[in-house]
Order: sequence, then structure tokens, then C-alpha cells
Amino acid sequence: MPPTQTLAEFVVNTQQIPDAIMNEAKRTLVNLLAISISASPQSPSKLLIDWARGEGAAPRATVIGSDVRTSTSRAAHLNGYLAHLQDYDDTHFPTILHPSAPVWPAVLAAAESEGTSGRDTLTAFALGAEAACRVAMSVHPWHYDAGWHITGTAGVFGAAAGAGRVFGLDVERMCHALGLGGTQAAGVREMFGTDGKALHPAQAARDGLEGAELARNGLTATPDILGGRRGFWAVLSPNGHSEEALLGDLGTRWELLQNGLKPYANGVVSHPIQDGVIALRNEHHLTPDQVEAIELRVCPLVPELMGRPNPRWGLEGKFSFQHCAAAALVDGAGHDAQFSDARVLDPVIAAVRAKVTATVDAAIPEHEAYVSIRLTDGRTVSTHTEHASGSPQNPLTDAVLDTKFRALVEPEFGAARTESLLDAARNLDAAADVRGLMAMAAR
Amino acid sequence: MPPTQTLAEFVVNTQQIPDAIMNEAKRTLVNLLAISISASPQSPSKLLIDWARGEGAAPRATVIGSDVRTSTSRAAHLNGYLAHLQDYDDTHFPTILHPSAPVWPAVLAAAESEGTSGRDTLTAFALGAEAACRVAMSVHPWHYDAGWHITGTAGVFGAAAGAGRVFGLDVERMCHALGLGGTQAAGVREMFGTDGKALHPAQAARDGLEGAELARNGLTATPDILGGRRGFWAVLSPNGHSEEALLGDLGTRWELLQNGLKPYANGVVSHPIQDGVIALRNEHHLTPDQVEAIELRVCPLVPELMGRPNPRWGLEGKFSFQHCAAAALVDGAGHDAQFSDARVLDPVIAAVRAKVTATVDAAIPEHEAYVSIRLTDGRTVSTHTEHASGSPQNPLTDAVLDTKFRALVEPEFGAARTESLLDAARNLDAAADVRGLMAMAAR
Repeated sequence: MPPTQTLAEFVVNTQQIPDAIMNEAKRTLVNLLAISISASPQSPSKLLIDWARGEGAAPRATVIGSDVRTSTSRAAHLNGYLAHLQDYDDTHFPTILHPSAPVWPAVLAAAESEGTSGRDTLTAFALGAEAACRVAMSVHPWHYDAGWHITGTAGVFGAAAGAGRVFGLDVERMCHALGLGGTQAAGVREMFGTDGKALHPAQAARDGLEGAELARNGLTATPDILGGRRGFWAVLSPNGHSEEALLGDLGTRWELLQNGLKPYANGVVSHPIQDGVIALRNEHHLTPDQVEAIELRVCPLVPELMGRPNPRWGLEGKFSFQHCAAAALVDGAGHDAQFSDARVLDPVIAAVRAKVTATVDAAIPEHEAYVSIRLTDGRTVSTHTEHASGSPQNPLTDAVLDTKFRALVEPEFGAARTESLLDAARNLDAAADVRGLMAMAAR
Repeated sequence: MPPTQTLAEFVVNTQQIPDAIMNEAKRTLVNLLAISISASPQSPSKLLIDWARGEGAAPRATVIGSDVRTSTSRAAHLNGYLAHLQDYDDTHFPTILHPSAPVWPAVLAAAESEGTSGRDTLTAFALGAEAACRVAMSVHPWHYDAGWHITGTAGVFGAAAGAGRVFGLDVERMCHALGLGGTQAAGVREMFGTDGKALHPAQAARDGLEGAELARNGLTATPDILGGRRGFWAVLSPNGHSEEALLGDLGTRWELLQNGLKPYANGVVSHPIQDGVIALRNEHHLTPDQVEAIELRVCPLVPELMGRPNPRWGLEGKFSFQHCAAAALVDGAGHDAQFSDARVLDPVIAAVRAKVTATVDAAIPEHEAYVSIRLTDGRTVSTHTEHASGSPQNPLTDAVLDTKFRALVEPEFGAARTESLLDAARNLDAAADVRGLMAMAAR
């Protein structure tokens, strides 16, 4: 059987999602709502929201954190953007895919337009996220190493699968949805550090949703976009792929258990560094003027993805491990506030940033780092982060997630609405449909 | 200077397009309108048009051959689809890029919404088409050989450039438009022979237009999407690229002179075969029952792209050189009518199709073929097509193009409206704005 069809059968025919996975799905939704609402007033978000408002489409689906209801396509597009703009979303650790940003917006737009129940919406997300993670695993590491932004490329398969599940597509149409979406897999890593990076999950959400809508209406595609001779594996991962990684233990092993929620609003491979710097800062009450050097031993992806000693604006700071470490030392945090243009240009942070160096150790995985800080008094303090906070082995607790939610949403929505929305997200599995939640997520 | 910036400066700053290029631009528009109107009543087109109508967006731009006016994005998307569905569009012979399908819809949507003059619209197309062809040449043949559908991938750069020119972007914003569009370059050849193939220029038109709109509004991207370390060349053409092919003789050598308009509604590499078969058929008054074997000597792309001995439906027939040759023998033509599902399943054509064989000769370019037909009476008749009709060395005359226009448009619009529309397209350079033409192209 073509691999695309096996994946489609799993997405179409799975009846029951384990409780632990449904719970993780809800946690990703809580996280997604928080970061999207927090991102909604930023200037690139406002630009996109105004642009969508101007299109004047019939109101079918909500753009989170805005007063715009628009077409399903445009809502999926903008919500994909909002979910990724701050780089504060979730991460599938085996592949560095961010599954929520492409998948949730497609599922929510489909479910809001259909009036789907909360439980079916969560189920569709869990299956779409599984599809995205499985496609990502099937091409990792070759595909990412070649320069692809896997959140865009693998994400579109998850968006198509999740939206297709909401629409109740049969297996044949699900294959067409995966084909119509998957042939638009795109996004190169050259965009990291710019406004444009978040367009990758945006377009993945939109193109996956559109693939599902068009397949539902009868448009056809190749039946095996993944395994076909000139399909996704052959063209976007010519150096290698694994059918076993795509299909092994489908329905018994769930990739959402390898998905972590971010405690810091920047590229995930710097997180164990930030954990270490903040721990040393707090333990030894360090101030910037005491620092002689911050010396790191890290996995090879750190300089590959985040080697920017002199970031020029906020978004570049999110892809500078030097800035992440310096801001952690100065501010003791890595929220979005540490990545404003002003913070990136701040002279105190810049002075510390110039003292950050890293050596690469290929034996270190991306959730681990060694941090040493040499002090002006001659002492050196050191620590070892084995599993970064927010990684699967060291997950954010529900209490910490709720704190993150409140910290990000309250400034926008006020305390009372924040609690109502959190409550609605936490109880979505009991909701008759998802429209109430989306109305509360609008501004 | 980064190559993206050099290309952007050319698109932004070129003042005058040579008359011969403006004339070619007009001829591509005549061709595009004809094939789009002819494609508009087909079932996948109707599906897409109904879908767009349902979105109910404010009427900014016209979907050709329909009663729908919608957002610029969706109009560009659907017009890109209509222009490519029949595989009856134009071809840039050095790269097999089809430049009109991604570029014209982006330019027309931008120009209709802006009220741009006919002359400026043609200029924007000429520059956008040049950008698309240059990007295609910079990665040919490595990129196409890897399985990419170059009309989608290089096309999006042309769409961004053309729409950006309509909007009057400065060089910096033009670079952002190319980045925002270009990072969405997508489309794999596995989709050939399905409804989904024409989504590649569709998404290229839409994503290029959106890149230009968002850059105009202030969204930013990487400044060098083409040459950057993880940009288009590195990721989508790792086996080779040529900066000289992108930038050499910009403004003195024009690629529209290497662009041909199709006389047959199928994959272009079969065209010299069809020329030969039709010539032998007409010269010797051949009928299907006389044919013992049709033996071809062809360029390697013929079996690579169009080796489908048993096509199952119309669109697969367009990518079967065996069907193209058989239909040419039986019907003496290769219009869209020869690629209906019924014609592909016709037993007389199928019997001839089973007698078609090809040997590959790597020395033969794609505009050339040798055709021999062995007859049941023992004779063999042969011919050699050196330059296929519609190729740059053997272009369609204006008279033949007008005949194609009338043949495709009259069944939809009637004779009087067909003549008015043809007249408006042929005189677009004198029009105060492009809106009158687009109103006439609506249904």
C-alpha cells in the first residue's frame, strides 16, 4: 500500500485517542491561544490583520486576538502566523518541528466553520499533529540539514490531515487532500530572524486547509504524494527518508509525548543554555558587571541555527544564542520582552553578549548544554542542563503553563476574560462546539 | 551586491521595454485569455470558482471566464489555475517554464485593483516574466531534474516581481516581496497528470502577489532569498546554480523571445512528434487501420515527462506521448478535445497508442523529433521535425494565434464578444486602465 494511503487510513479511521494524548492536545491549545493573543498587537500581526480585514470575506472563522472573522483560508493563514511570530510555540524534540502553529489553525478554521464539537476538534488536532510529526520524522535529519524549515514543509501535511479529519473525508479524498496540500510544502531557513519566518506555518495551515476543502469538493491529486517517484521524499529529501519512521507503531506510539511547550520565546536549541544561565544567575546573584566570560558547550545545531553574535533587531535576537544567554544573565528571563528591538540594542546586554562563546560537541543532544561563567573576581561557576525545561523529559507543569497563559493574555484581555478563556480551553472536550471558544479568543 | 538585489533593481528601475518584447507580452495575453476562458467551464475550474464565490470577498479582481470578482489573492490563484489546466499555455523553451500562468494572473489582479494603465500592465508582465525566466535559467537543469515543477517554483518570483512593479515598490521592498514570495516556492512533478498540477502556477501567482502586497505594507524578509546561505539556490538546487544565467545581459537579452505559444494542448516535449505525425497523416492520407507501428526518435525528456503508455483519464493523456501521437494520427489535431476522458478511452485511439514506441537520443533537443510510421502494406513513411511549431524558431504567427483565440473563446462567448475581447487585448497598450479588458473577460 502506498505510504500516503496508510497514513490517510490512520487519520480517517482512528476512533479513540488515548486520554494522555487528548490532554496534551488541550495543553498545546492553551499554549497556542496565549502566544497568539500576545502576538496579535505586534506590528507585523497588525499589518496582516488589517490586510485580511480589507478583503472583506464572509465571516466564517476567527483570527485570534482580533476583531476579524474571515474566510477559513485567511483565518488559518493568519492564525498560523500569530502562533509562530514570537517563536514561543511548542516543539517536537526529535525533529524541531513546531506542530501546533501549522496544525491548530487549520483545524480551528475547519471546526469553527463546521460547528464541530470540542472533542472531535481535539481529536482532529491530535491526528493532524501526529501526521505532521510522522512526516517530519520520515525525512529527519536530511531534510532540515538541507535548509528546509520543517515546520512549513511537514506542517502542511498535518494541516491537511487535521482539517480533512474535521471534514470527515474518506481515505481516497484524504490522500487527495495530502497531495493538494503536500505539493505546496515550502519554506527555507534563510527566512529565520525575519518577519517572514512565521509565514511558513501560516502558509502550511492555509494550504493544508485548502487541500482538504478542495479534496472534499472533488479536486484530485496524485494518490501518493509522499512515496511517489517525484513526490515529497524524492524531491524534498533526496539524501534520505524512512518509511518506518512515518508508519511504525502508528496508533500505539504518539509523537505529542515528544512535544514540549516553550518556557522561552526564542529558538528552542538555546533553551538549555538559558536554563543554565538563569540558574547560575539566581544561585550566585550575578550582575552583568561581574561577568568576564560565558562559555558554553552545546550541540552542533546551536551555532548552525542561532549563531548571530550581533543581532540587529528583535527577531534576530530570537535566533542569536549569544543574545539569549546575555538576556538570561541580565534579565533572568526569556519572554518576548527580552526580544524587543530595544532590548537587542541595549548596551548592557550587548556588552554581555560580546562575552558569550560556544564550543560544539557532537555528542550533546539539543535539549542539553554545559554553561560556565567566569567572573571578574577569578571564580568560575558552572552548571549542566541535562533536559531543558519544556523538553519532554522535563515538561512544563500545568501550573507553569497556566502562569504563562495569564502572563501573556492578561495584558491584552484583562484578568476576568483571561480566566474565562483559560477555563474554556481547559474544558474544550466537553463543549458542544468550538465556536464559543473562538468567540472568546476574538478581541 | 546580493543577486536578489540586482534582479530587484532591474525590475524596479527599467524604464523602457523594447517594442518586440511588448508585442510578445501582448501575444502571451491573447493566448492566456483564450485558454483561460476555454478552461473555465471544465469541472475542476467550476469547483474552484464556486469555492471562491462562497468566500464572498469584496470584489477587487476578476476571475477570467466567470461571474466572480473577489480578492486579489483569490483572483490570482484561480486565474493561475485556469491558465494552466489544459496545458495549452506558453513555454520558455530553455527551461520548460510556463511563464504566463504564474505571472499574468498576479499582474492582472494587482493592475485591476490599482487601475493601472494598459502600457504599465504590459511592462510589469514583461519584467515579471523576465524575472521568472531568469530564476529558472539560474537553476536549470539541476532543479527540474530533481523533480521540481519549475513553473511553480521559479514562477512565484516572476509573480512577485510583476505585482511588485505594478505597486511601484522600491528596491528594498522588492527584495522583501521576492523573499516573502520566494520562500513559498513549491510544486513537485508527482502531480503531473492530475487536477492538482495547475495549482502550482495558481499558488505561485497568489503567493507572489501576496508577497508584493505584504512587502508594500511593510512586512520584511531576508534581503537575498536567491543567494543566501539557506536560500532558494542552496535548498532547491543544491546540485548547481548559475548567477550568470540569472543576471547576464539583463535588459539587453530578453527571455520572452525564447518563449513559444502552444499549438497543442499537452506537454510541450511531444509537440515535434505531433507536428511530424500530422504532417505524415495529411501528406499520405493515413487512416488508423493502415498503421503497423509509429516509431519515434526523441529527446530524453519525452519518456521522462510523458512516458504513459496507458493513460486513464484526460489529464493523463496530456502527459502521454503515446496518446498525443495516436490522437494526432486519428484526429489530426491536439486541441483540448483530444484530451477528454472519452478520447483517452476511445478504442481506435487506444489501438494506435499501443503501436507507439520511442527511442531516446540525448543529442536531440526538446523542440526536435524523428517520426517513422510503418504501414500494413509494407511501406514506411518518415519525417523530421527540426523546430516544433510554436517553438521560438518556428513561432505561431499572429494569424494562427487569432485563430486559436477564436476557436477557444467563441464557444463560450459567441462571435461578437470574442472579437471585442481580442481587439481589447491586441490594443491593451493604448488603454487608460486594464479594468475594461477584465470586465470583458468576465462571464
